[in-house]
Order: sequence, then structure tokens, then C-alpha cells
Amino acid sequence: MRSLPSLLDSINDYFVAHPFPATPSELYEPCAYMMTLGGKRLRPAILLMGYEIFRDDTDRALPAAWAVELFHNFTLMHDDIMDAAPLRRGNPTVHTRWNTTTAILSGDVMLIQAYRHLARTGDATTVLALLQTFNRVATEVCEGQQMDINFETRSDVSIPEYMRMIEMKTAVLLGGALEMGAICAGATATDAEHLYQFGRLAGIAFQIQDDLLDTYGDPAKFGKQVGGDILQNKKTLLVLKTLESAPDNDIKELMQWMQTGAENPEQKVEAVRAIFDRNGIPQQIAAEKLKYQEAAFHHLASVEAPPGRKEVLEKMIGDLLERES
Amino acid sequence: MRSLPSLLDSINDYFVAHPFPATPSELYEPCAYMMTLGGKRLRPAILLMGYEIFRDDTDRALPAAWAVELFHNFTLMHDDIMDAAPLRRGNPTVHTRWNTTTAILSGDVMLIQAYRHLARTGDATTVLALLQTFNRVATEVCEGQQMDINFETRSDVSIPEYMRMIEMKTAVLLGGALEMGAICAGATATDAEHLYQFGRLAGIAFQIQDDLLDTYGDPAKFGKQVGGDILQNKKTLLVLKTLESAPDNDIKELMQWMQTGAENPEQKVEAVRAIFDRNGIPQQIAAEKLKYQEAAFHHLASVEAPPGRKEVLEKMIGDLLERES
Repeated sequence: MRSLPSLLDSINDYFVAHPFPATPSELYEPCAYMMTLGGKRLRPAILLMGYEIFRDDTDRALPAAWAVELFHNFTLMHDDIMDAAPLRRGNPTVHTRWNTTTAILSGDVMLIQAYRHLARTGDATTVLALLQTFNRVATEVCEGQQMDINFETRSDVSIPEYMRMIEMKTAVLLGGALEMGAICAGATATDAEHLYQFGRLAGIAFQIQDDLLDTYGDPAKFGKQVGGDILQNKKTLLVLKTLESAPDNDIKELMQWMQTGAENPEQKVEAVRAIFDRNGIPQQIAAEKLKYQEAAFHHLASVEAPPGRKEVLEKMIGDLLERES
Repeated sequence: MRSLPSLLDSINDYFVAHPFPATPSELYEPCAYMMTLGGKRLRPAILLMGYEIFRDDTDRALPAAWAVELFHNFTLMHDDIMDAAPLRRGNPTVHTRWNTTTAILSGDVMLIQAYRHLARTGDATTVLALLQTFNRVATEVCEGQQMDINFETRSDVSIPEYMRMIEMKTAVLLGGALEMGAICAGATATDAEHLYQFGRLAGIAFQIQDDLLDTYGDPAKFGKQVGGDILQNKKTLLVLKTLESAPDNDIKELMQWMQTGAENPEQKVEAVRAIFDRNGIPQQIAAEKLKYQEAAFHHLASVEAPPGRKEVLEKMIGDLLERES
């Protein structure tokens, strides 16, 4: 069982050994730029950890791991255009540094490159199984992004709809990465399914935690501005839960805050947080997160393998889900 | 051997039997719209014709044929954004009828759908071989599009560079479709390569013919406005050949026309055409086209199969290359 830093080294070595083509540089330089903006490489790392539950020759799964990382960055490059986002990890987004045409076409070729790496992972039977999982998950990620876009202009989003959106947009890719690790290792369909469910449910728990931390995180530890979701009037799980369960006067006050700009940002964050607090919303959301987290680890426990082989994966996901909450 | 109309029927039946998912409708309706704008289905048809050189059970190749058609339409949807094109086949483009976000995301999911159909074509070994060809060609199409974009702002494009661009942007996909037909049929690598080269070289001949017809076509038969390239100051093969071989005063006159708007369109088309004519440019371009056409059919003749089995493909490509020229 290799440690996270050791796996990350292998992933970066694979990237160095398999760079984008040199020409046309206008097409591939933005791809290389995107891949070196300093992402955490979480998805390829958990794919390899999924593989290591069953086998030790981890390098065999590297092309699939890199395919998942390329796919994730393709979605970020196109999402940044759709969101008109100026920055990504503190650096200009591709459509800002170059232009929209470049961000579309470089994103397209990154997706195709993902499939090229996938086609290099093992024998034909393995590639076909990987392709089926990858296609299914990639489709769901696009559908989740569309749901997210739809929700921006809808005022009647239900909590089940919101949960389905975060599941599709981000959680299934974590599940898919683990399933692909299991496929590369030749695991049974049952174990591959348990790993998929582990990743999917943990992914939902992450997203719930993200909503919580955005409003309740420790400013010293949280990477972004605490209260950012409130200031952007985002319909997070905190908001939806309040709309579902709070008394009318609190709902009315929340709606008023969400329809106003933020002349005094601190006052707005404070006031909205007070509405959440007096309705016990953070406690309810934390309980919801715990429910998904427990269901996730139940699936991990069901994977048939000596317990020691799951340790690295268990610890990393556990640590990520314990951050400050 | 089935006729073109019979093959087109099968392709459309396959589409009817395998529609896009119903939801999210905001994602998939633009995909369905794009696929029903009335394209000629040239690429899936030649894939099936390539298959029929070797086998009769053509329906087995339909998923791969549809994958190629989906890929082609994905590139059109994204190219239309990049070109800011308002119309496609006389109808509003997706980014015009909906918006850019929709055209990006629906295009993305169409590309992924193409891979889903590919994964349904035959056994694992066939799918892997198809995937490798598809990935290679799809990458080249993106590279060709980038070269085309680069050329718009360059004044020093050479004829070999231009030929390479049209080869990548459009010709390799015709070659790839035929190669995929051969792979589906279990043809030898040699025959698959001959069919690829046939499609690639015929594709280059088509593009050369397109440049010629845009300026010299019969207005009654040519689908677009004759002289459109001249009015848009496009650096077509006619222009590049003139810059390469005409005397200085003709080059100077051509450059002047290309730097002016078209207050009197007919006069401009007439004047530029006169420059081409007195330098024998159309004859040179027609000879160039014939060279590629002959090389293409030489490869088709080299495919090991009873001559009768190549007839439908031979006739269709031959007819397309004889249009008015």
C-alpha cells in the first residue's frame, strides 16, 4: 500500500512522460496550463487507491487515472466559460488568459485525450469495461451541470432535486474513479459496485460539507471567503432546508436578504447565518452529511479484501470529511 | 450491396431507435435539433459502404456509423460558436437559437454520446480498434480546426500548410469512417489502411473542389452564393496558388482587393476571378484535385474484394467528385 504522496509522484511522473503534443501550440498550451494550475489530483489518486485494494502493480492503472484527471479539467475549462469565471485556483481561467474559442477547442481536445489514455489501459476487455463506466459517468456530469444551470433561474428547487444535482455534477465522478480502479485491478463486479457507491456517497457528503463550510468554516482554514455563498445568493442546501422547515417570518426575511445586494457584506452574512442558527439548520445539515458518510463507509467495509489494504483510502476520505466539521 | 437510400434509411431507423435521453431536456433538445437539421449523412453512409465491401450484415456497423455522425455534428455545433455563425443549413445555429452555454454543453454531451455508441459496436477487440482510430482522427480534426483559426490571422500560409489543414480538419474523418467500416467487418489491416487512404485522399479532393466551385460553380447547382469566398477575403487554394505563381502586379492587385470591403460585390468577384483566369489558376487547381482523386481510387482498387462489392462506394464518391467540374 503506497502513501498519498507516493501515488501523487507517480501521477505527475506519468504526466511528464505523456505530455500533450507540441503542435499546434495554440491548442495544447492552454491544456498544459490547465493541468499545472495545482489541482489536488484527488480523483486519479483515489482511482489508484481503489486499485491498490486488490493489486500492488499500481502503474498499470496510471493511464486510466490520468484519463479521469483530464476529464475533470476538461469540465472545469468549459464550466469556467459558462460561469464567466475570471479565476481558477488564483490564476486567470483559460477563456480569460486566451479567449472563448481557445477554451472551447482546448477543452474538446482534452476530453478526446482522456479517451486516448483510457484506450491504453490494459487489454481490450478491460478497456471496454472502463469505457462503459467512463461514458456513463461523463454523461451524468454533463447532465448535473445542466441541472445546476437550470436551478439558477428556478425558485422552486426541491431538496431531492438539489441532492440529485450535486450527485451527478460531482459525486458520480469520485464513484466512477474508484470503480475504474477496481476494473483495472480485475476486481469482482460486486466489489467494483461497492467502491462506486463508496465514492458516490462520500462525494455527496463532501458537497454537503462544502455548503456547510462556506458559511460556518474557520476563516483561517477555509480556502475561500467564508460567507461567499450567502453574498452570491446561492441556493445552497442551507437555504433549501430553511425554506422547507423554518417559520414563515424567517423564510420571508431570508428571501428579502437573497433579493438584495450586499452593501454591508458582514451584516448580510451575520443576519442570514442568524436565521440558519435559530432554526437549527447547521445541525440538520451536519446530520445529513453524517448519514451519507456512514453509508459510504459501510460500502467500503463490504469490499472483500484484507482490512489493511483499504487503510490509505479510508484515511484520506475520512480526513477530508472531518475537516473542521 | 445496398443502395445509398437503403443505407440512409437504416441510419435514420437507428437514430429513431436510439434517441437522446429525455431529460434534462435543456441539454438534449439542442442535440436532437442539430441532428435533424438535414445533413447528408455522408460519413455514416460511407462507413457502412466500407463495411459492405466485406460483409452483408450491415446493421452490425450502425452504432459506429452513428458515432461518426454524432462526432461530426459535435464539431459543427462548437465550430459555429467559434465562427459566430448565425445559420447552419438555413436554420439558426444552436448558440443563436439557445445560447453559447447550451451550445458548449450540448456539444460536449454529443461527443460523449458518440463514444457510447462506439462502445456498443461488436466485441471488446473491435471496440478497442475502433476507439483507437476514432481517437486519432478526432484529435486531428481538433488540430485542423486550430490550424484553420491560426491561418485567419496569418499572411504567410504556405500551400503545404493549407493542404495539411484541410486534410486534418475534414479529410481524415472520411478516411477514418471508412477505416472504421473495415474494422467492424474484420477486414485485414492492409485493406483497412487502403480504405483510410481512399477516404483521406478523396476528402482532400473534395475540399479542393469546394474551393473551385465557390468561385467557378454553376449558380443554379451550387448551394451557396458563388463568389462567397472572394467576398469574405478567404485565403483559399486559388488565392494561395496565385500568390505563389502569378506576376507581381497581379499579386498586388489581388492583395488590394482582399484588403477592401465589397461595395460592389459583383465587380469584386469579377475582378478577382479575372486575376485567377489570366494566370491559369483554375486549371492548376483542377489538375491538383485530379491528382488526389486518382491517388484515392488507386487505393480503393487495391482493396482485396470482388469488384462488384466496391461499386456503391465507388459510384457515390465518383459522382460527388464529378459535380460540375
